[in-house]
Amino acid sequence: MDRERVKQLLEQVRAAEVSVEDALDELRLAHVDQLGFATVDLHRAMRRGFPEVIFGPGKTTEETVEIARRLRDAGQTVLVTRVGPEVHAALRKLAPEAVYHPRARAVSIRSGEAGKARPGVTVMTAGTSDRGVADEAIVTAELMGNEVRKIFDVGVAGVHRLLEHREALVQSKVIVVVAGMDGALPTLVAGLTGCPVIGVPTSTGYGAGAKGEAALLAMLNSCAAGLTVVNIDNGFGAGYAAGLINRAREEAK
Amino acid sequence: MDRERVKQLLEQVRAAEVSVEDALDELRLAHVDQLGFATVDLHRAMRRGFPEVIFGPGKTTEETVEIARRLRDAGQTVLVTRVGPEVHAALRKLAPEAVYHPRARAVSIRSGEAGKARPGVTVMTAGTSDRGVADEAIVTAELMGNEVRKIFDVGVAGVHRLLEHREALVQSKVIVVVAGMDGALPTLVAGLTGCPVIGVPTSTGYGAGAKGEAALLAMLNSCAAGLTVVNIDNGFGAGYAAGLINRAREEAK
Amino acid sequence: MDRERVKQLLEQVRAAEVSVEDALDELRLAHVDQLGFATVDLHRAMRRGFPEVIFGPGKTTEETVEIARRLRDAGQTVLVTRVGPEVHAALRKLAPEAVYHPRARAVSIRSGEAGKARPGVTVMTAGTSDRGVADEAIVTAELMGNEVRKIFDVGVAGVHRLLEHREALVQSKVIVVVAGMDGALPTLVAGLTGCPVIGVPTSTGYGAGAKGEAALLAMLNSCAAGLTVVNIDNGFGAGYAAGLINRAREEAK
Amino acid sequence: MDRERVKQLLEQVRAAEVSVEDALDELRLAHVDQLGFATVDLHRAMRRGFPEVIFGPGKTTEETVEIARRLRDAGQTVLVTRVGPEVHAALRKLAPEAVYHPRARAVSIRSGEAGKARPGVTVMTAGTSDRGVADEAIVTAELMGNEVRKIFDVGVAGVHRLLEHREALVQSKVIVVVAGMDGALPTLVAGLTGCPVIGVPTSTGYGAGAKGEAALLAMLNSCAAGLTVVNIDNGFGAGYAAGLINRAREEAK
Amino acid sequence: MDRERVKQLLEQVRAAEVSVEDALDELRLAHVDQLGFATVDLHRAMRRGFPEVIFGPGKTTEETVEIARRLRDAGQTVLVTRVGPEVHAALRKLAPEAVYHPRARAVSIRSGEAGKARPGVTVMTAGTSDRGVADEAIVTAELMGNEVRKIFDVGVAGVHRLLEHREALVQSKVIVVVAGMDGALPTLVAGLTGCPVIGVPTSTGYGAGAKGEAALLAMLNSCAAGLTVVNIDNGFGAGYAAGLINRAREEAK
Amino acid sequence: MDRERVKQLLEQVRAAEVSVEDALDELRLAHVDQLGFATVDLHRAMRRGFPEVIFGPGKTTEETVEIARRLRDAGQTVLVTRVGPEVHAALRKLAPEAVYHPRARAVSIRSGEAGKARPGVTVMTAGTSDRGVADEAIVTAELMGNEVRKIFDVGVAGVHRLLEHREALVQSKVIVVVAGMDGALPTLVAGLTGCPVIGVPTSTGYGAGAKGEAALLAMLNSCAAGLTVVNIDNGFGAGYAAGLINRAREEAK
Amino acid sequence: MDRERVKQLLEQVRAAEVSVEDALDELRLAHVDQLGFATVDLHRAMRRGFPEVIFGPGKTTEETVEIARRLRDAGQTVLVTRVGPEVHAALRKLAPEAVYHPRARAVSIRSGEAGKARPGVTVMTAGTSDRGVADEAIVTAELMGNEVRKIFDVGVAGVHRLLEHREALVQSKVIVVVAGMDGALPTLVAGLTGCPVIGVPTSTGYGAGAKGEAALLAMLNSCAAGLTVVNIDNGFGAGYAAGLINRAREEAK
Amino acid sequence: MDRERVKQLLEQVRAAEVSVEDALDELRLAHVDQLGFATVDLHRAMRRGFPEVIFGPGKTTEETVEIARRLRDAGQTVLVTRVGPEVHAALRKLAPEAVYHPRARAVSIRSGEAGKARPGVTVMTAGTSDRGVADEAIVTAELMGNEVRKIFDVGVAGVHRLLEHREALVQSKVIVVVAGMDGALPTLVAGLTGCPVIGVPTSTGYGAGAKGEAALLAMLNSCAAGLTVVNIDNGFGAGYAAGLINRAREEAK
Repeated sequence: MDRERVKQLLEQVRAAEVSVEDALDELRLAHVDQLGFATVDLHRAMRRGFPEVIFGPGKTTEETVEIARRLRDAGQTVLVTRVGPEVHAALRKLAPEAVYHPRARAVSIRSGEAGKARPGVTVMTAGTSDRGVADEAIVTAELMGNEVRKIFDVGVAGVHRLLEHREALVQSKVIVVVAGMDGALPTLVAGLTGCPVIGVPTSTGYGAGAKGEAALLAMLNSCAAGLTVVNIDNGFGAGYAAGLINRAREEAK
Repeated sequence: MDRERVKQLLEQVRAAEVSVEDALDELRLAHVDQLGFATVDLHRAMRRGFPEVIFGPGKTTEETVEIARRLRDAGQTVLVTRVGPEVHAALRKLAPEAVYHPRARAVSIRSGEAGKARPGVTVMTAGTSDRGVADEAIVTAELMGNEVRKIFDVGVAGVHRLLEHREALVQSKVIVVVAGMDGALPTLVAGLTGCPVIGVPTSTGYGAGAKGEAALLAMLNSCAAGLTVVNIDNGFGAGYAAGLINRAREEAK
Repeated sequence: MDRERVKQLLEQVRAAEVSVEDALDELRLAHVDQLGFATVDLHRAMRRGFPEVIFGPGKTTEETVEIARRLRDAGQTVLVTRVGPEVHAALRKLAPEAVYHPRARAVSIRSGEAGKARPGVTVMTAGTSDRGVADEAIVTAELMGNEVRKIFDVGVAGVHRLLEHREALVQSKVIVVVAGMDGALPTLVAGLTGCPVIGVPTSTGYGAGAKGEAALLAMLNSCAAGLTVVNIDNGFGAGYAAGLINRAREEAK
Repeated sequence: MDRERVKQLLEQVRAAEVSVEDALDELRLAHVDQLGFATVDLHRAMRRGFPEVIFGPGKTTEETVEIARRLRDAGQTVLVTRVGPEVHAALRKLAPEAVYHPRARAVSIRSGEAGKARPGVTVMTAGTSDRGVADEAIVTAELMGNEVRKIFDVGVAGVHRLLEHREALVQSKVIVVVAGMDGALPTLVAGLTGCPVIGVPTSTGYGAGAKGEAALLAMLNSCAAGLTVVNIDNGFGAGYAAGLINRAREEAK
Repeated sequence: MDRERVKQLLEQVRAAEVSVEDALDELRLAHVDQLGFATVDLHRAMRRGFPEVIFGPGKTTEETVEIARRLRDAGQTVLVTRVGPEVHAALRKLAPEAVYHPRARAVSIRSGEAGKARPGVTVMTAGTSDRGVADEAIVTAELMGNEVRKIFDVGVAGVHRLLEHREALVQSKVIVVVAGMDGALPTLVAGLTGCPVIGVPTSTGYGAGAKGEAALLAMLNSCAAGLTVVNIDNGFGAGYAAGLINRAREEAK
Repeated sequence: MDRERVKQLLEQVRAAEVSVEDALDELRLAHVDQLGFATVDLHRAMRRGFPEVIFGPGKTTEETVEIARRLRDAGQTVLVTRVGPEVHAALRKLAPEAVYHPRARAVSIRSGEAGKARPGVTVMTAGTSDRGVADEAIVTAELMGNEVRKIFDVGVAGVHRLLEHREALVQSKVIVVVAGMDGALPTLVAGLTGCPVIGVPTSTGYGAGAKGEAALLAMLNSCAAGLTVVNIDNGFGAGYAAGLINRAREEAK
Repeated sequence: MDRERVKQLLEQVRAAEVSVEDALDELRLAHVDQLGFATVDLHRAMRRGFPEVIFGPGKTTEETVEIARRLRDAGQTVLVTRVGPEVHAALRKLAPEAVYHPRARAVSIRSGEAGKARPGVTVMTAGTSDRGVADEAIVTAELMGNEVRKIFDVGVAGVHRLLEHREALVQSKVIVVVAGMDGALPTLVAGLTGCPVIGVPTSTGYGAGAKGEAALLAMLNSCAAGLTVVNIDNGFGAGYAAGLINRAREEAK
Repeated sequence: MDRERVKQLLEQVRAAEVSVEDALDELRLAHVDQLGFATVDLHRAMRRGFPEVIFGPGKTTEETVEIARRLRDAGQTVLVTRVGPEVHAALRKLAPEAVYHPRARAVSIRSGEAGKARPGVTVMTAGTSDRGVADEAIVTAELMGNEVRKIFDVGVAGVHRLLEHREALVQSKVIVVVAGMDGALPTLVAGLTGCPVIGVPTSTGYGAGAKGEAALLAMLNSCAAGLTVVNIDNGFGAGYAAGLINRAREEAK
């Protein structure tokens, strides 16, 4: 409920077109919206194709489908993360257009047509085992309307592999770097480019620092400025943040 | 050494204006530059007023001054973090324009005139004790050419304090949120805005999770999408990343 | 054995109604009871319908049934936590009135009629995945004779969802707040109300700080006064403490 | 701004006693208050003598005095924690009635006369070194209007010391138990009483689990129901929560 | 090979009863024995019925049987820990007298007749779930020739349960106390007796400090002197140490 | 208050030599003693020269002196740990016979004459820096009436140094092994002897696992049976436990 | 692209045998190789039979086979670690000479004939459960052309077992020591020899410090100089480093 | 005492050239030496100029001087680590040739003339703050007779800085890489060379993973084979291991 509507309502009260009681009710109901630039912003985001995410684990398939139904009925693009094909099967009954992304273990249900994708987002991985997390970032950023450049398997043990992709790095506007084990790749990339870099540690490896701890700490202690980090295996969060950064850039045009 | 120079060199070799040996030497010496989009990008950044940072701890004042001298001689804006006023005193002998930022415990030496600052960056704190870290972010972002809006002391224990600043949040293009203890503020802010949010945990508090651990983990586990994180007390890193994001947006215009 | 009985016993000894030896034996046997206001208090609690809890894990079904039998024979209300339906099946043979609470994974066997429930306890959750732990708290508090108001899914990423429940918060006398991930909800609630708040971290999420560690630390470091905490996933403990607090209030009337 | 005032305002608008613009302004300004049962509740708490706490560390003496001045001007009782006598000296210039509590390292500035204290709160310690933290809890609870019974030095290595205080335990309505090292005392107390118990681990001791970690974990894993916990050394938090619980009980009368 | 045998050997060499080569071989072979009070002591232990333990996990059944065969052939009592009934079945083919201890998940193969057991060892548990670890301690101590008094389920949440066993505690010469969760029982016991107490933390419970960490830290930080600790779930180690202590006492007679 | 006194009291009541009221009072007051085999045992220990320990840190010199005075007045041997010479100076005013042990940073005040010391206790260290902790163990064990054999500086990096002390190891009845860094020495010693071994990790070293964590974990995971452990730097606890073990052995004679 | 080829190219440009454009392209394409002593070195290693390792976990069998195919086509020796026999089965279709090492859970595919093995590498284990990790080290070092001496089961609990192998230790040029639990063996070995020792902690054991943490920390804190460490269970890394050290030695001849 | 001497001794006994008693004594005294290839090897090392290290912390200056005196009297080169200039001053009185290395905080006392240094060892650092630790490695390796190439300040944030040193890397036979913060440099170096690399994490930086934890974990999880690690800040250990590796190579010539 924006300022104009409140003004209009007050004028209607004055003009006795609206009773005090009705005005009171509307103001009361509007309370959340009035707070509510969050909500307003949410609506705006929604219209522009930003996905609402449902975090799969800990929810029954029925709960997941029910939440997806309500979001879809509200015209929103839906993203369900960390679910198996059986959830996809259940969601297809609700929405035949539901797509399963097997490596990302995600289901997407797009509302409306995909517009022209914004270029600028790059997603890189250090190793083959980082693909699942990278795919979650890619699916998320693509659903948000971005064209995603993908560079896989350029870990630092052979630094020349990374250097072959110089041009791609220079052209990127924001880079998501997915890396497990020593987590050194985001630092190298941030040292080679002038754009924001988001590091995603992955839970590959074994021994001390495994489960992504070493990679996370290495990224937090990066000696390269401009690197920010999301939690271990949080491909969705990195893809979403990259989408926000790239959108802000695009909107500025 | 860019492609054009290599082409020119080859043409000079062909025209026998340059001997094979001399060309070989120049190619060899150019090796690093040839790699070197990193370097090129660095130069570009430099010209645009991005500061080079000197991390103070573990360096003697003499070392710090010497590094600052070289950077300044190369025409760069210099930022020295985590140093006391005695380092400022030493740097003033080198550069009378050196400014000391007491809360941030930083010294800045600007090269050239400050241009018109880019609006869009906001730095917030949850509590009074987070000011030092916030100031490091502010100094960094301002040196990078950003106009920084400052909102202090809006911790979540009194959520209404935050809500008073709705308008400022909506107008921001990137927000740095500095918070210790429970680290909840960045989550709230990310839930209320549509722009990228960078969380900076601070090492305030005591007991289990103190030294910023609780705040860091809370931010990494945030239930609000679009939040990325830097290490505990790393105001510089957050300010720098915010500057990169805001610059990308500005350049797109 | 209370003071009155000791006095009586001594008088009986003096009156030679009881031999020194018999008195000595009774005093000896009474030793534990004499200590033993704990026991006395236990009896009192028992009569008032406070449940005895059997922690299921690490016990065979036979052991669980046997302990439940002894408690039930003693006229106590029994609560078995963290067990599957097969334990319920075994307990129904013992007690046909045994009820299974599937989300809480608990079995309750009420002794006698449920009296009129005391209002005042509220149990809230931040997300859908926190329901199991919340239900354990609810079942516990209800068995203790409390009427429990339930508010689910009001996580801080959308703070307006919480604010819709202001009235409920104000009317509560003690609030259990169940939250995983960033664990920020109890802090917000404690900042919005004037009653005791008990935070229950849950082991949802993944990555650094997962398994509830981030949520626990965030709650321990809460910037809101009046918040106390139980261990991760300990819905029973929170429900029990809330029951104690609400009973004390009620008794004071 | 409550419902009645909104209704009245609307009626004044209808009656043209207030212009649409003025009503709009008032509604706008009232926004926070409208949210704002938090604020309202805060005011209520204030009038009833609940202290506002200023966490000392990380603030300059000047900042501390300034915040205290504003709170005192608003008629609030002020509690400053974790400060030395030099802060007390500075605060005495502001408020001659400021009292320094040397073990608690706290300053209190009471607004108005202390009313009749509510009995029911007990604060216990396991050892001599836990006194500082206990005193912070005592000062807090007393400032909130509670009469605090104090039982010191009853650690579990000699369980008979605790048992001497049976009667006091039974009469308590809420007990704060402060213990370092093995942190076993709160479990014993919770097993002996039927009232809520709040455990405060302290950072005494050395070696593995020192700094209060062992005590905190022991309390979180207590086998006694009804025990809730605050962070290590957080005497203020425990005293405040005890005050809330005891007040609720008292109000119910 | 003791000094006497070396002397004798040298004399035999001098008397040419033994060739230099043979003496050299014997000295060489004796090398380990010569070091070798360890070995000698081992033999002594062996003859007195001290079991050799085979740690089951990480070994195939074949390896376990083979090692057991060699120990049994050498006349030793064998104890295999942490194995299932299928290992027992395999060992019974080797040694029909092999006994399976299902709670302890151990197999024992006694060499020779069990002599008269030494009284003095007591094994206690705090809860029902600690029985498996306690049984490992009991089986170990019994195989070493001790008579073990067993006291189960006397956790500190009801301290009167422990106090009922005063007499048993006073008569014990060494006490193994097995406890999970808060790990408080060993401290209480050590405070009540004048004999050595060995604490065994167990990996029961959940949440922070679970897996026995809270119990271990609590025992390491015990405020009761005379308590030593073994690793989490290490019933064997505690039983063995108790056996050594009780033997030393017995030998002194 | 023992059984005999209760019997006598009852007979006095019967004989009307004592009033019911007085008997009630005496029984009430005796409550603790009645429990009280702890107390009884304590008295026994006291008479036999077992020291009462005062843990110095966290206590003012005044508090320390006051506690020491009460213990000494009760005829107890007093041990004050972890204090500087200034505490010794203060205690000498109370008790001229107070001795300062500078490496152990302990003060001892012996009550009565030291009797003939019991042989059997050995204290070993791995390195020079472990001496302070070893001395705390030595002072404690000696005050308890033990003759302590001392073997210093026999760390495992040169295993031959240890083997030179074979004979001493074989003659020991209980061995305290103090070791920092890798904490390997107790395992070696336990593998070479047949008596109980108590490991004391020390907080020497630096880097990961420093502060004694590596040593503690290594000892808890020792592959040698019969090793128990106390907390890092807890020389007092190890010396006390060794004293208890050696006393039990001696009493058995 | 080496210096000679660049010189030749320049001469061809001068001689107009190669156009400027073609030379530019070749220089551009050669960029990586030009960097590229890494690559050159890799080629050298390859020709000398150093295996390329494929880390199995996180890869599908198809991916593993595909990578192996490419490496084998390039004439490289291939080592696949941490895979089951089903991966071996799939690789045998590609390369009939593929060998499965069941304890190491590795597949090796040797390119060309194995040359004469270099002596000097020794691999030792403390216990039976360390064999799998040791075998990974052995397979790796053998594939690199080393003759590996194997000494198993010489844990420090019986130090004489180790001392029997003195001669072997003295003859070794580099020793890999695999040990779990207390991790003491590498320290002993490093104290007994004058050659480099590489410690490999293993994840055997249970309780605090289990999963290899105790062993890793003990090795990092070793009091014996000359010991370096790899991550827990990283037999491959240790075998590879030992191979590099032994090769350097051999090459020096 | 080697086999030959034992044989000779036996023959002398047979020939009655040596009495049985004398032979017994010699065998007895030789015990340690007989074990004792450790000792023999130590002597060998000593003669070749390998330093004996005295770890300074936890020792008084007097103790340090006394140990140094004994080592020097035995003709050994002495290295004292982690001490201030005051220890140097004290040692100069003992040995005028004692040299203080201020960055390394070490004192060296060389025995005899330094021979011709062996080339092959390189020590690198990522940043300026890593110099102290690097210097400890350099001093150690140089005292062991190595010529050390030094490459400072080539951290991965600007990878071109490292690539400028390609030639040096290729010529090294063993490389010590000292790096704090993200600890990525050793991985890069190991990926670029074919020689053994030893990583030394340093305790620079702040926040999560500070104190060298992030760097240590990153190195343990390195994706580059051939990298081994020493503890945080352990420059001595790395320099010593590098010296052993380089000596083995040299001896092979």
